[in-house]
Amino acid sequence: MKKSAIIVAGGSGVRMGSDVPKQFLLLNDIPVVIRTLQLFHAVADEVVLVLPQAHFDYWEQLRSQFNINKSDYQLVAGGSSRTESVINGLEKVSGPGLVAIHDAVRPLVSKELIVYAFESAAKYGNAIPVIPVRETLRKVEDGHSMVVDREQHRLVQTPQCFDIEVIKNSYKQFSGSTFTDDAGVFEAAGNTVHLIEGEHSNIKITFPADLIFASAWLNAR
Amino acid sequence: MKKSAIIVAGGSGVRMGSDVPKQFLLLNDIPVVIRTLQLFHAVADEVVLVLPQAHFDYWEQLRSQFNINKSDYQLVAGGSSRTESVINGLEKVSGPGLVAIHDAVRPLVSKELIVYAFESAAKYGNAIPVIPVRETLRKVEDGHSMVVDREQHRLVQTPQCFDIEVIKNSYKQFSGSTFTDDAGVFEAAGNTVHLIEGEHSNIKITFPADLIFASAWLNAR
Repeated sequence: MKKSAIIVAGGSGVRMGSDVPKQFLLLNDIPVVIRTLQLFHAVADEVVLVLPQAHFDYWEQLRSQFNINKSDYQLVAGGSSRTESVINGLEKVSGPGLVAIHDAVRPLVSKELIVYAFESAAKYGNAIPVIPVRETLRKVEDGHSMVVDREQHRLVQTPQCFDIEVIKNSYKQFSGSTFTDDAGVFEAAGNTVHLIEGEHSNIKITFPADLIFASAWLNAR
Repeated sequence: MKKSAIIVAGGSGVRMGSDVPKQFLLLNDIPVVIRTLQLFHAVADEVVLVLPQAHFDYWEQLRSQFNINKSDYQLVAGGSSRTESVINGLEKVSGPGLVAIHDAVRPLVSKELIVYAFESAAKYGNAIPVIPVRETLRKVEDGHSMVVDREQHRLVQTPQCFDIEVIKNSYKQFSGSTFTDDAGVFEAAGNTVHLIEGEHSNIKITFPADLIFASAWLNAR
């Protein structure tokens, strides 16, 4: 079955305390987004990279500096929201087949998890990696908070893998809405999410500490 | 106001894939529990260390090897559950005053957060550090899962700081129950939890990757 991948890089870098958007930060001398791109290029038949149009020139410099072939991916401009960016990416892929949608700022995902997500989606129609909640979890409501059962909750990661036509159709129905991930859109459109086991190390580079963590993890691997 | 601290080290190390319990693992050449102990010794008037009785001999070796004064802390045997261990620790402290209860396996907590937890508890009766949920959060029920609002949820850390008499009284009422943290016991006893801002870097050493992360974080600091 054909395997497509969409790498979504929308971040402006505000939370990192850095002028460089998170996806362009160097992680052991290689930009985060290039690490992620290469991981998916090794597994998928086609890779779509969604970047803000304003970053295209900078990307071109990086691409040439790090010897990334233009034929390894398709570049697409992002929208004003994550939803819009994913929709722009989905326009470049077509079924029948599967598509893995992944945050550019998760460069530590293993090849095994990418392969497993595609395999599970081939079997179940979709695959959403999740990990258990290790800390006590509280819910805040009306200024008060209460413990909720952490055993009943999961933290959701990417790559989230879907049948191309089904996820395209889901996004068509909710193009104006706000979702924090693709599984939310897929579910809102009436589909049932299939959870798979994610990876503790598959972190999102959000804070400066994450970059330190990610670098140490790569060195130890 | 008198400031006491209880460091709870109950772990058996199974999840680390290691025979050494997590609290004794070396983090940049110093055992995790010794790092944590010293942090609290610098801020609190008294420190109680709760360890499984089976680890007392090993602890004595470490203590002497790392030149920890016996007068810096009181050693207490843990129980068969976290609840029992905390109760044993609470028996060694007395009010009026505040007590910070902390996981031995969170050696990256900053001195600032410890001080802030005591200050907030002095003002509000208790202080529970929490951080936002960065990932999409799902709830699993009856084999299905659904998105829940991550903005309404918080991940709970330690040190959790309380008025000594109030937390002692809370534990008396729930000595036979299972809780994942002290705030849960405090709340079950009818008290209102006061949340404060925790630290993204204040991680729990649970998996091998955490030790790598913690080491890198200390090196970068």
